[in-house]
Amino acid sequence: MKVSAIVGERFKETPSECVIDSHIFMIRGGYMKYVAGGIYSQLLPLRRITRKIEDIIREEMDAIDGQEVLFPVALPGSLWQESGRYESVGPELLRFTDRGGTPMVLGMTHEEAAVQLVREYGQSYQRYPFMIYQIQTKFRDEARPRGGLIRVREFTMKDAYSFHTSQEDLDACYRRCLEAYKRIYERVGLPEVVTVESDSGMMGGAVSHEFMYLTPVGEDSIAVCGSCDYRANVEAAEVIVENPPAEALSPLTLVETPGVQTIEELCAFLELPEERTCKAVVYQRRESGGYVILFLRGDMEANETKLAGLLGEEPVPAAIDEDSGLVAGYIGPCGLDARHTVLYDRSLAGAGNLAGGANRHGFHYTGFTPARELGDVEYHDLSKVRDGGLCPQCGKAALTISRGIEVGNIFQLGDKYTRPMGMQYAGGDGEQHHPVMGCYGIGVGRLAASVCEARHDENGPIWPAAIAPWQVALCCLRADDEKAKSCADELYGRLTEAGLEVLYDDRSVSAGVMFSDADLFGLPVRVIVSPRNVEAGRIEVAARDKSWQELVPVDELVEAVKKRLA
Amino acid sequence: MKVSAIVGERFKETPSECVIDSHIFMIRGGYMKYVAGGIYSQLLPLRRITRKIEDIIREEMDAIDGQEVLFPVALPGSLWQESGRYESVGPELLRFTDRGGTPMVLGMTHEEAAVQLVREYGQSYQRYPFMIYQIQTKFRDEARPRGGLIRVREFTMKDAYSFHTSQEDLDACYRRCLEAYKRIYERVGLPEVVTVESDSGMMGGAVSHEFMYLTPVGEDSIAVCGSCDYRANVEAAEVIVENPPAEALSPLTLVETPGVQTIEELCAFLELPEERTCKAVVYQRRESGGYVILFLRGDMEANETKLAGLLGEEPVPAAIDEDSGLVAGYIGPCGLDARHTVLYDRSLAGAGNLAGGANRHGFHYTGFTPARELGDVEYHDLSKVRDGGLCPQCGKAALTISRGIEVGNIFQLGDKYTRPMGMQYAGGDGEQHHPVMGCYGIGVGRLAASVCEARHDENGPIWPAAIAPWQVALCCLRADDEKAKSCADELYGRLTEAGLEVLYDDRSVSAGVMFSDADLFGLPVRVIVSPRNVEAGRIEVAARDKSWQELVPVDELVEAVKKRLA
Repeated sequence: MKVSAIVGERFKETPSECVIDSHIFMIRGGYMKYVAGGIYSQLLPLRRITRKIEDIIREEMDAIDGQEVLFPVALPGSLWQESGRYESVGPELLRFTDRGGTPMVLGMTHEEAAVQLVREYGQSYQRYPFMIYQIQTKFRDEARPRGGLIRVREFTMKDAYSFHTSQEDLDACYRRCLEAYKRIYERVGLPEVVTVESDSGMMGGAVSHEFMYLTPVGEDSIAVCGSCDYRANVEAAEVIVENPPAEALSPLTLVETPGVQTIEELCAFLELPEERTCKAVVYQRRESGGYVILFLRGDMEANETKLAGLLGEEPVPAAIDEDSGLVAGYIGPCGLDARHTVLYDRSLAGAGNLAGGANRHGFHYTGFTPARELGDVEYHDLSKVRDGGLCPQCGKAALTISRGIEVGNIFQLGDKYTRPMGMQYAGGDGEQHHPVMGCYGIGVGRLAASVCEARHDENGPIWPAAIAPWQVALCCLRADDEKAKSCADELYGRLTEAGLEVLYDDRSVSAGVMFSDADLFGLPVRVIVSPRNVEAGRIEVAARDKSWQELVPVDELVEAVKKRLA
Repeated sequence: MKVSAIVGERFKETPSECVIDSHIFMIRGGYMKYVAGGIYSQLLPLRRITRKIEDIIREEMDAIDGQEVLFPVALPGSLWQESGRYESVGPELLRFTDRGGTPMVLGMTHEEAAVQLVREYGQSYQRYPFMIYQIQTKFRDEARPRGGLIRVREFTMKDAYSFHTSQEDLDACYRRCLEAYKRIYERVGLPEVVTVESDSGMMGGAVSHEFMYLTPVGEDSIAVCGSCDYRANVEAAEVIVENPPAEALSPLTLVETPGVQTIEELCAFLELPEERTCKAVVYQRRESGGYVILFLRGDMEANETKLAGLLGEEPVPAAIDEDSGLVAGYIGPCGLDARHTVLYDRSLAGAGNLAGGANRHGFHYTGFTPARELGDVEYHDLSKVRDGGLCPQCGKAALTISRGIEVGNIFQLGDKYTRPMGMQYAGGDGEQHHPVMGCYGIGVGRLAASVCEARHDENGPIWPAAIAPWQVALCCLRADDEKAKSCADELYGRLTEAGLEVLYDDRSVSAGVMFSDADLFGLPVRVIVSPRNVEAGRIEVAARDKSWQELVPVDELVEAVKKRLA
């Protein structure tokens, strides 16, 4: 392929809408083009990268007995009604009607489609286990797409679904998939990906892991223990709270607190630290509008993922109306309207002498001691883990919060889909059972962008050979020099015949333009043909990452390049 | 791969909803599963076939300098507004809004997306010509999906778009594509595909061809000349009408025709052949509701494709209301309300003494002679060519109407998209010009189904080696016989090591079940291991199409299979 023929524009300026390096280089290098918020077209260089990643994923999934299938992008809404997700999933599920008025959705994940495909096949235990997967376009109507390919609305994903007759069998498959994923990240050139415990969210199920590339530009927060191997998404990380040992408990006392509405104001007014307060966070249920009030220690942050898991639905921030009986700014556990769902975070367990709302405008209580005032209530883990927090595995105060890009996830789904969708098999015992499922996803474009985040310098990407759009950048520095040009032409032929993927730049442009374009293409090996070196019978070969550079005789060039790539 | 592990059900019964062989075998053979009208999931055997077809298409497109890209499936409606197709295309364009209320469409073809992608790149003539293509999911909200993969709503398509600075350059690229398409059909095993002239329809442009596999189960009608090489889609075929030589012309005479409303009734009432009548077909414009009345000779059929081409929009069948001034059943050219669009088909040119409606309930005219009554009106080619009609190329009455499946199409689009979408380049002359475009499509699934239509027997598909899901069916006839089983296991290893794709059946099932399943898989070469032959040191090798069969020594088996596949 010649650089002069590649469709796409390359330029130096950083586009104003780009804030992370992979996005900047993929726009500046003509890898992709913006079409609409979170929707891009891929140009040839990126398409070659994503195809190579897809091929690696395919090989690894086939190697663990995955069978490639293809589900539809447009699915009947009735399938999602069967599983209950047509109602339970929020507006990121794009719903529409076809010309006949039938409700449809754009597939954002394909558990329902997978069950529909194998429901009849899987009627006997003898057909288990099996795993099917696809590499296909998905659509997720994200409210805030960002970071180029990091968070998009339309994306290509490999999604696999396994079916089992026992939890042990699912466990074994889950471990095989986890190992296959590690191989995939190694092969595409991102071996530093780590696994973290995660929340199953709208997927359901009990056990799940995310694969994270840790980077400050990531949008996920991960709690990492500096003392043991514990790693978990902040959304899922268990929070261990130690309240100071009990001191002399004051009585519950009503205090006038005019104009004091926030925890900050309350702390300032009463001269208390935040951990000596009790705060309320109010949500509403999406469908019914019912209020959900979460109380937690004033210094803790509500964890909406855990809350959604407990409620079985994603609540929305509340709009407090007059009929609610709620006094905004003064909501507290004592004397609260009994109609509402009230939840207590673990951080209140064992706490005492707190200040909190009195459910009366302009008043708070002090001396609030949950165990005394509330009696035997249940405390739930509904807050977010913090930097310096206690590790739930080793117990040390060694948690740090890192940022990461989620480049894959795996879930144990149990019978969350097979049960409501009526998938059953006749077991060896003659009884009917619901199979248990696992699901396993990797976003192809996000993985490409993550590799770029991990492998670049200030001038452009440094693609690992396995996924580089081409392997060799052949630069003819003076296409107007007859000898240099004919030498470069000759080498282009030889390298190509040797089975290498060569991007040949024979344009009449300055060395500066040629090299800055080559940097943007980011191919692992660069071959530079210049009149001076050709005169001396030598060709310069160099690494894109600048780790080596050498002059080799013309006739040894192909072998030298092959050796470097191997 | 072992047959016992393949996800999917195979069975003998013809599903009631299937009427054509490819659909029957793909359902009976576990190739795909119905999800919704015109929407299927592909199982492993079909996914392997479609991937091989995709790879062949990709190679041939790359060979003519196509650059693979990827457009979005979900496109902003604004792009289609730029080209004007958001309004002009009917309900087969699926329109929806995203969570922010922005109008979106599901891509059914990607001319707009292609122009959007290269609009900035193509600003100088020096960057031309270029061609980009993708292999991607498309959605077309067909009113009547049918025939399994023949007419679906969601499908995978290779669509290419070329851009040029001159008609000559477009012509040259168009010819190269046409030749590449022929190679594709040959390589996938369907060399009998023919090219026919076609109508450009909603794509616009002047020159277009379809690639047709002629078969009675096809849904397109093609006019084929038995005397020369003329072939055209009936939608596009020019109609040559010869009216009988002028006879003595009668005067225009009002005739009472009580209860006579159809051409059949009129012919019976007046004892005239249909070609001595003038009939009206009434449409309405989609947007404005304005009436369009087409008059043609009573024996001719209206060609709605040609009509849409002339009007620049697809009209809909009319609902005649009272304000229209139209008298249903009695509409004729004489005395017709002047508000409406009136069109005359060529079949009326030179005709005389016709009977037709008088625009008055219960009355017709006889003696209607268009040249005399209408004066100097324009006649358009708006009817359908008929079996036995005159060939527009050689003039002989040698046209026959055949049925065919459209397995590809190519269009010259001119500046239909680049002009309204403002794509321009600076020419060598320093002036701004709109580039001209070509577009080139192949539906992958429909091509797979067409190969199956062309290559099957009563028991199942006979896949050509190049696209067969696997190349070799290895059948161990008696898996309970230790020697046979270990011989088959050994051969499975050897064939696989030799780089062949082997589907191994080592189930404990009857030979009947094993062979009928093998027939449904349709692999070109079958290797049969039976206790009796193993005892004699021989293995049976046979063709799926029964064209040959042989016994070879065990040690020569791999070579024998390779030779047969070559």
